[in-house]
Amino acid sequence: MSMLPVKLSHASRLVNHGPTVLVSSAHAGRRNLMSAAWSMPVEFTPPRIAVVIDKSTFTRELIEASGYLALCLPCRAQADLTWTVGSVSGRDEAIETTGGKFAHYGIGYRDGPLLGMPLVEGCIAWLEARVLPEPHAQQAYDTFFVEVVGAWADERVFQNGRWQLQDVPDDLRPIHHLGSGVFSVSGPTVSGRMMDASAG
Amino acid sequence: MSMLPVKLSHASRLVNHGPTVLVSSAHAGRRNLMSAAWSMPVEFTPPRIAVVIDKSTFTRELIEASGYLALCLPCRAQADLTWTVGSVSGRDEAIETTGGKFAHYGIGYRDGPLLGMPLVEGCIAWLEARVLPEPHAQQAYDTFFVEVVGAWADERVFQNGRWQLQDVPDDLRPIHHLGSGVFSVSGPTVSGRMMDASAG
Repeated sequence: MSMLPVKLSHASRLVNHGPTVLVSSAHAGRRNLMSAAWSMPVEFTPPRIAVVIDKSTFTRELIEASGYLALCLPCRAQADLTWTVGSVSGRDEAIETTGGKFAHYGIGYRDGPLLGMPLVEGCIAWLEARVLPEPHAQQAYDTFFVEVVGAWADERVFQNGRWQLQDVPDDLRPIHHLGSGVFSVSGPTVSGRMMDASAG
Repeated sequence: MSMLPVKLSHASRLVNHGPTVLVSSAHAGRRNLMSAAWSMPVEFTPPRIAVVIDKSTFTRELIEASGYLALCLPCRAQADLTWTVGSVSGRDEAIETTGGKFAHYGIGYRDGPLLGMPLVEGCIAWLEARVLPEPHAQQAYDTFFVEVVGAWADERVFQNGRWQLQDVPDDLRPIHHLGSGVFSVSGPTVSGRMMDASAG
């Protein structure tokens, strides 16, 4: 598999369909990873995304300290990973002692080339982003507005700026959290056609 | 089919998986309908959702005038409707003269029982919501924070507060806009299991 750069003008398309994402963070040698079902693009150009990160999370502490985060898109093969890192805290003692979630669970990653955020191996897309300072939205709605500075996607599922999900193996498809660890898998596609005016 | 009330504490689950929604609006006898790929929950209790509505849209004019909107979740059978109402403006002259998109395209709806917002027939969920005044987020990010006051869902796909998408007909499944009128269909589900600590 090969992660190819995605043009910034196409970056918001990576989360246009509402997939569950992994939010990765790093600051001063500490790293963390959590899942987030709640994110959405807010602009194509510049590529801006909103993501909800609860005040209680270790991820939020790291993001507020660094001003950066990465969004990594897990595929069906990573449903266990996605559920697990969303269910335990990076502040859990057993996890802290083994060096954080990445080490504790043996999750592979590389450092992002632009911001140094952890990019999870096996994900189908990565976006490095900087936090836009919006203290009110962060406080009142746990909502962070971020601007993407670099994006990459797996060429098997995203080509020429578009998702290609019609005929890919199930394991590579994006997932969408329905609740309680159950995800719907982005299935085959359907194309909308323009309707005619009603005869009525 | 039967649309059953959904508890407010379960309302945010209706959009937890990032489906494309229809935003319906009404004010002073005028109504409109547009599709929006960009929405997400921001809170379960009270049920609050963020949705992006461009400044140029007729929908935005109606929502700002009334302070209300409804989110209607289209299913696969409504892919054409979803693409169509997202591709044309309610200000289009041919559409205005025939009485708006509902009349022009023969789209069935009923008035919402709480706020009078149009609820589109054939959708698998409806949420009536009031706008929380957040002028900065509306201006800077086209992002509206809304609070759900009433929710309903099709009992064939949402039961006891949970989506049940494992064995439903394709036509009833939620859809997720990938771009350019192509939607991914929420396919069968996968359950995440907790990982063990790495042996490494």
